[in-house]
Amino acid sequence: MPRDPVELKTVWKVRDGRATELSDWMVVEEPLEIRVQGEALAVIMRTPGHDIELAAGFSLTEGVVPSLDAIDSIRQCRSGDAGEENVVEVTLGPGAGFDPGRMRRNLMASAACGLCGKASLEALATQARPIESKLTVKREVLTSLPGTLLEAQESFGRTGALHAAGLFDPGGRLRVCREDVGRHNAVDKVVGRMALDGLGTGDSILLVSGRTSFEILQKAAVAGIHIVCAVAGPTTLAVDTARAFNITLVNFLRDSGMNIASCPERVTGI
Amino acid sequence: MPRDPVELKTVWKVRDGRATELSDWMVVEEPLEIRVQGEALAVIMRTPGHDIELAAGFSLTEGVVPSLDAIDSIRQCRSGDAGEENVVEVTLGPGAGFDPGRMRRNLMASAACGLCGKASLEALATQARPIESKLTVKREVLTSLPGTLLEAQESFGRTGALHAAGLFDPGGRLRVCREDVGRHNAVDKVVGRMALDGLGTGDSILLVSGRTSFEILQKAAVAGIHIVCAVAGPTTLAVDTARAFNITLVNFLRDSGMNIASCPERVTGI
Repeated sequence: MPRDPVELKTVWKVRDGRATELSDWMVVEEPLEIRVQGEALAVIMRTPGHDIELAAGFSLTEGVVPSLDAIDSIRQCRSGDAGEENVVEVTLGPGAGFDPGRMRRNLMASAACGLCGKASLEALATQARPIESKLTVKREVLTSLPGTLLEAQESFGRTGALHAAGLFDPGGRLRVCREDVGRHNAVDKVVGRMALDGLGTGDSILLVSGRTSFEILQKAAVAGIHIVCAVAGPTTLAVDTARAFNITLVNFLRDSGMNIASCPERVTGI
Repeated sequence: MPRDPVELKTVWKVRDGRATELSDWMVVEEPLEIRVQGEALAVIMRTPGHDIELAAGFSLTEGVVPSLDAIDSIRQCRSGDAGEENVVEVTLGPGAGFDPGRMRRNLMASAACGLCGKASLEALATQARPIESKLTVKREVLTSLPGTLLEAQESFGRTGALHAAGLFDPGGRLRVCREDVGRHNAVDKVVGRMALDGLGTGDSILLVSGRTSFEILQKAAVAGIHIVCAVAGPTTLAVDTARAFNITLVNFLRDSGMNIASCPERVTGI
């Protein structure tokens, strides 16, 4: 049964020196264990819902499999006294060559990838290649995206505590939008949805509601996404990653403009 | 040599359809390896600076040691071709009883703590006890905190991409403020600074610039902090954790008011 990503909880609302007890919407946060071939590979805090997409996207962007063709099934299991669906089992096809020990080292590395920015980029280069693409997008298409994403966000307005990720086509039409308490989970969910539908993400524009740190660009690079946009700012390592993999990185995107940190030639009309 | 937490990078600023190439401040993001007794325990993405505090706070809030008395030394090492200081070595005193295998399992659990919210709280109960305290704070003191924190933030205004954590005394005076690309790192840095100065955190008020998810409340519970405030919203599991450990949780804190999700009796004047 699909879970609601938000729940009502009692709070004391204090305004102008007076307190009122009322029910307020809050984003649900619970752990999800991702099991591959029966081995617990990772436990991530996430907002319940779209867990199959999350496991599919995670398997792709963290390099568990090169494509969903290597996966036989992704199945949600019950766990806990209350029957919470907080375990997802990924079963690989024959010849997938999965080595849990190596994968765990990779995951530790992918949270960090060595001990300087340069080592991080070198480690990522074993999983992703620089984008070669003639894709261009009009400036007005980009500036329209935050409004479209905000309209599609179901839960943010109710909680003020959710991150969103959206994938758009080059004309600015929303392909898929997902929300999660974790920024990287929202990206994994949209990448997973596209892959489960048999669609590529190459010509998509990714928009995230918050900042762009290394992990967002890392996942975009592995997914082959050409253009990454965000409403807030980037980190230095995000910019270095975008430049190393020829990804167009757009930050502080709003009606009035944007800052482009990498590959500005894909944005036309400026 | 202390690193600057921000760096200048070239961006193309697009406003009103015109692009200008200029230098913009960005928050630095680099991996830090925390080694305990020579074993790599964790690699976290962080903003360089105050790394000793970060390692001290991490060791406390993740339960590596019950107090800094168990630590002999915390030392920063050089790594990489450019001599980046991205490794911190923690050396424990005799009898600290450190088991790296158990600790790694704990860290995986502390990112998740079982497979439902209830299990998360039960796991945390082995490291933290419910707060028993008669501490009260005036409403006007709380509403003054975001302004004080913002004044103390050195880098946010330049980058728009940094989280801040501040510890305040019950009168609203700032004890310590730290910024980091990771919310949990900023909390570890302020907790570590206080511990390195031999000061308790019990009567402190913690204010974080963003949201409160489980990990923030988890760290506050282990550090024995009575009051946690945030400018944005909470997750369900953060509220459950605050209630289980008698921590006052204040969200959406601003001049005009706040929402209190747990233990409102510590806030007077409403």
